[in-house]
Amino acid sequence: MFDRIKAAKERLRGYANVTPVMTSRTLNQMVGADVFLKCENFQRVGAFKFRGAFNAISQLTDQQKSNGVITYSSGNHAQAVALVGQLLGVPTTVVMPNDAPGVKRAATEGYGATVIEYDPEETTREEMAKVLKAEHGYTLIPPFDHLDVIAGQGTAALELLEDLKRLDMLLVPCGGGGLLSGSAIASKGMDPACKVIGIEPELADDASRSFHTKTLHTVKNPPTIADGTRTPSLGKLTFPLVLEYVDDMRTVTETAIIEAVQFLFYRMKMVVEPSGALGLAALLSGALSGSGRVGVIISGGNIDAETMSKILRISNNFLSTS
Amino acid sequence: MFDRIKAAKERLRGYANVTPVMTSRTLNQMVGADVFLKCENFQRVGAFKFRGAFNAISQLTDQQKSNGVITYSSGNHAQAVALVGQLLGVPTTVVMPNDAPGVKRAATEGYGATVIEYDPEETTREEMAKVLKAEHGYTLIPPFDHLDVIAGQGTAALELLEDLKRLDMLLVPCGGGGLLSGSAIASKGMDPACKVIGIEPELADDASRSFHTKTLHTVKNPPTIADGTRTPSLGKLTFPLVLEYVDDMRTVTETAIIEAVQFLFYRMKMVVEPSGALGLAALLSGALSGSGRVGVIISGGNIDAETMSKILRISNNFLSTS
Repeated sequence: MFDRIKAAKERLRGYANVTPVMTSRTLNQMVGADVFLKCENFQRVGAFKFRGAFNAISQLTDQQKSNGVITYSSGNHAQAVALVGQLLGVPTTVVMPNDAPGVKRAATEGYGATVIEYDPEETTREEMAKVLKAEHGYTLIPPFDHLDVIAGQGTAALELLEDLKRLDMLLVPCGGGGLLSGSAIASKGMDPACKVIGIEPELADDASRSFHTKTLHTVKNPPTIADGTRTPSLGKLTFPLVLEYVDDMRTVTETAIIEAVQFLFYRMKMVVEPSGALGLAALLSGALSGSGRVGVIISGGNIDAETMSKILRISNNFLSTS
Repeated sequence: MFDRIKAAKERLRGYANVTPVMTSRTLNQMVGADVFLKCENFQRVGAFKFRGAFNAISQLTDQQKSNGVITYSSGNHAQAVALVGQLLGVPTTVVMPNDAPGVKRAATEGYGATVIEYDPEETTREEMAKVLKAEHGYTLIPPFDHLDVIAGQGTAALELLEDLKRLDMLLVPCGGGGLLSGSAIASKGMDPACKVIGIEPELADDASRSFHTKTLHTVKNPPTIADGTRTPSLGKLTFPLVLEYVDDMRTVTETAIIEAVQFLFYRMKMVVEPSGALGLAALLSGALSGSGRVGVIISGGNIDAETMSKILRISNNFLSTS
């Protein structure tokens, strides 16, 4: 798999952003480590998902491309597939629940995708996509459980390790495990000594439980503010990869997540969505004790006005910026 | 003056951040130019003001340093002087109006400065600082009308020009004119062909009027959201420098400023204060027609929760991020 990630990196050249690595003296002092934030909030579509979608779709045959692709997502993967489709001239269809936020739908349609709604009371998104795939000959690009998607997501960690040479620890948010397994494979391929740790909300701790018990656990609609991690469980491919390549899993509270988003806003002047701030939440809250050189994947920055306003209204101690 | 800016750059090495230059494919398409944002929101204290304060204070004699410095500001310059004082072991006193926001005072005190309040009904900040200066032997570090402060502020543009080699146009926010005059001198020193344009809010257009009439105009408490530009007028030093080195001045509406802050938040995932977004506001609103290679100084990112929430609630068209 490491070779697939290296190949993905070549494929993404000129299409994906090589995102910057940000640091903060204040942060380093607060956590007692040298922290390097790999800023995928500055990636195209505002999240790492562009990498996986591009890596998967760009490898389709001409016939598959002209038939079009389908996916299910109401989040960043939907926008990523839509934009990649637009860039590569591939028709895209996205299945979304009929209660998805209007702004998510509008953003996805803005990139030229056809959005098809389904009623979550009556069917599942997988079932809906399967029917449409069979009917129209679409190729399915799932949000995480696909080797080319996983390889694409691993390119962010690969860039980070190539840039920094050596890290003692790499912290990666975990939803369905595509970013986590890709990052772990890239990291171990570059430097086996670097410990890779997946971070989840306490309220959506299925992957942590799965990791520690080596049995797949699930969650249903967990009420975490980190909407990118509400995925029911790790996938058929990502679960064994996480077991093989990840060193540990940790969970963080909702308060820790909110404080991390606030710190990034007030002190680092970056817009980061709650799921994107999980790694920093683990460090700032002390859920994980950082030391040496710590890499953190900031996975995305797509947050709506309402959620950000709510977070900013909660009192905090991050009002000055050194 | 150009030599002073080059010397300031050496002096700042290891203390100030060499801030990143950010770009956006979407932005380039929208304005029909290659736009390069010099991100001083990522500077220490969240604004370019650290540069000028450090350049001025670090050049004081040991005696002056031990006597301490004084300034008047309720904004970013106050925090900059306070942090520089902390870094260099120089006692700092900041004069603020007694109606300054509590968070500004707290942030300044957080860096170890002594804040002294005055009643704007009874005296002026300049008068108050003068009395304290005489009484305690402080050295005054004014917010903009000081050659070492101006030279420090010019280092951001110097870094940008050194990095990019060539620009057709450089857009710089204008309050008291310290950043604008410093940037213009740096820019003309590096590349005389680059047009330097100062940008002000329409509601605080004193510098534009002063520039076009060659007579100093003033404004009083202009009700613009761009609080960093509410300065009454250009200074004794900055006015002639602006006349000599700046090619043109333009104004932007409050709506244009708000939309620029929204664009930076939603599409570029950056936290930028209204004053910091003036250059981008000119481009996005069409107040200025960009072409070729356009540099924009994003001057700062210190915005409170209330102002940002208000801005985000205003409807906009920047919901997706390519």
